[in-house]
Amino acid sequence: MIESREQALAADAADPLAFARQRFALPDGVVYLDGNSLGALPVGVPAAVADTVTREWGTNLIGSWNGNGWWSLPTRVGDRIGALVGAAPGQVLCGDSTSVQLFQALAGLVRLTPGRSRLITDEANFPTDQYLAASVARLLGLDLVRVSPPDLPGVLDERAAVVAFSAVDYRTGELWDAPGITAAAHDAGALVLWDLCHAAGAVPFDLDGIGADAAVGCSYKYLCGGPGAPAWIYLAARHHAALDLPLTGWQGHAEPFALQPRYAPAAGIERARIGTPPILAMRALDAALDAFDGVSPADLRGKSLALTELVLEFAATHLPDVVPATPGDPRRRGSQVSLRMPGAYQVTQALIARGVVGDFRAPDMLRLGFAPLYVRHVDAWDAMVALREVLASGEWRDPRFARAAGSPVT
Amino acid sequence: MIESREQALAADAADPLAFARQRFALPDGVVYLDGNSLGALPVGVPAAVADTVTREWGTNLIGSWNGNGWWSLPTRVGDRIGALVGAAPGQVLCGDSTSVQLFQALAGLVRLTPGRSRLITDEANFPTDQYLAASVARLLGLDLVRVSPPDLPGVLDERAAVVAFSAVDYRTGELWDAPGITAAAHDAGALVLWDLCHAAGAVPFDLDGIGADAAVGCSYKYLCGGPGAPAWIYLAARHHAALDLPLTGWQGHAEPFALQPRYAPAAGIERARIGTPPILAMRALDAALDAFDGVSPADLRGKSLALTELVLEFAATHLPDVVPATPGDPRRRGSQVSLRMPGAYQVTQALIARGVVGDFRAPDMLRLGFAPLYVRHVDAWDAMVALREVLASGEWRDPRFARAAGSPVT
Repeated sequence: MIESREQALAADAADPLAFARQRFALPDGVVYLDGNSLGALPVGVPAAVADTVTREWGTNLIGSWNGNGWWSLPTRVGDRIGALVGAAPGQVLCGDSTSVQLFQALAGLVRLTPGRSRLITDEANFPTDQYLAASVARLLGLDLVRVSPPDLPGVLDERAAVVAFSAVDYRTGELWDAPGITAAAHDAGALVLWDLCHAAGAVPFDLDGIGADAAVGCSYKYLCGGPGAPAWIYLAARHHAALDLPLTGWQGHAEPFALQPRYAPAAGIERARIGTPPILAMRALDAALDAFDGVSPADLRGKSLALTELVLEFAATHLPDVVPATPGDPRRRGSQVSLRMPGAYQVTQALIARGVVGDFRAPDMLRLGFAPLYVRHVDAWDAMVALREVLASGEWRDPRFARAAGSPVT
Repeated sequence: MIESREQALAADAADPLAFARQRFALPDGVVYLDGNSLGALPVGVPAAVADTVTREWGTNLIGSWNGNGWWSLPTRVGDRIGALVGAAPGQVLCGDSTSVQLFQALAGLVRLTPGRSRLITDEANFPTDQYLAASVARLLGLDLVRVSPPDLPGVLDERAAVVAFSAVDYRTGELWDAPGITAAAHDAGALVLWDLCHAAGAVPFDLDGIGADAAVGCSYKYLCGGPGAPAWIYLAARHHAALDLPLTGWQGHAEPFALQPRYAPAAGIERARIGTPPILAMRALDAALDAFDGVSPADLRGKSLALTELVLEFAATHLPDVVPATPGDPRRRGSQVSLRMPGAYQVTQALIARGVVGDFRAPDMLRLGFAPLYVRHVDAWDAMVALREVLASGEWRDPRFARAAGSPVT
């Protein structure tokens, strides 16, 4: 247990991931704990993007589609992400937004389960997951069933077509039992989609190992691909030949350059391609993923748990008015800590004014994300000391921290 | 009629759009006539993108969603594109790919026409337009009808739900009679979607004036937004309140930051928002659109027609083996010229080797695009002289120009 700033510094000195922080350009004077909303800037990105703009686009122009490998970016970047979520090559495609990929994956899975009538999602899932599940259920004539993941067994029967959960609850940071849920759904004959937005890059995952049927995730949180970085879709190889996806863009055609009037899907994961992907954004993401080179999943998870444990222990010891929403059991914890408290909105603002950047989740939650590659133990310590001071001094009651318009964060 | 290089230079000297070429960074020694596939790099883009990466993302981090206006980019950039296609503000949203926007718009329009059973598209439409129309027809239980735009009257009856055409044929460059087609479809009670991929930025359009119901387009051709630049969707304001779009991402919610479990669409064009858009790519596009500042639609169209006329006249005069696929009538011509000839694939390659970049369309077409902001009369002249030499000398028969793998172009 870390009980002083000195101990936090000592933990950083012993941290096997300490080398990774220099892979990021972080502003001075800021403890950035909002990497679960927008990850920090990896140092290799500016040059990579500039080269793509000036040389590849400006000079090589249309020739860059082949000559500079633009065409294969969705599969190459997809495989790099796949390596971080336990997917063997050829099963992850990068492109479009998480919302679009959710639509694509959900509809594809439902079409693999004819005769089944229920699409099951988490009643507390991130809104876009619920909205797209509702849209797909309506289009394909299913009933949408909302249930908390622990209560899934109560609704698992022969009607269950697809179960679509997020691996980590975006508000509480609770990590669900993905292996157990996947197995239970499979036992009932259903297919399973995992949304890894709040896991990829911080919570190692084994999509192949647990037998997931599909997964999606964004790339702008722990993967640090930049604002609105292209999302990704995982489709298990065993389903590829049968997958009948609704977003039948020309790039997913078996012969995209033959320009045929009738659609015929490509073999393999390339059938998940849709339209022309945003190359500048995907190049940024590709360069960002260099920050994960040589990082072991065990170190990543160990660092993440050490940071969140520090925060939970500090709160239990020093902050009597604060109630954690995040499980203490490390097996049930993602890479964030959400703390309930009176005045949480104003407290969040007061912390930001002190250079500690987290975010607020209604009605009463301060949400702190811990990106294990660049957040140090001493950052977590300093953030908690700042929180203690904000609460003890009452400075959060200052009118300048009162609620105005919300800020766009997920 | 321009009959010499000197006359071409004189035409450039008198060109009211001559000032615009310096707004682009073009490689030396290249006549770039593939801007109908990937537009050239506007000079303001590199600095704008670098600032977005380094300052907005790297330094301001999550605060940039509000502080640097990221949240409002889809509507602000949308309105700028709207100004180039005849859409009053508040009807164009920028984001996602053309394929995704086609799906969104087609499904939305079909849902506005209950009781009608036919989705009509062009049998020669760009493949993705046909594929997405087929997908939407299947999901919503309609029959897909393929017809050439001039033959539309023959299939217009009470079964017609939606007519979805491209304004300019991507192979031949033929410009369809959008006002007449729209009026005829409306007379039959159908709604109309226009794909302006090969028009926006080169062929002025009046979406509001002709009463279009929806439109989509990419931003990486004549709009010069960069590879995979975010596409755009136009939805006529009169339909907004009733539009029931299928891609119900969280950003299109009436209260996106309230994070409600049930979807309720935003008022106005913001209901077409889906997920988090690629900010780096959208910033590039935003900066690219500066190239259109102060450009009059009449000058744009005049320059485009002058360039394509030069090419057609040269071919008629000097190239007996070449048959234009593009109409001579300026009212029916977009901003490209497609020329049929024996050995067209090899001819295209031989021209590229000479620094004249066009592209090939099966089975026998050389396709030359004329971006009126940066292509000069002398470029068009030099390209045609090069073509004459390639054909007359037989150099296109050189084995190094023989067909290999296709290149990804649209």
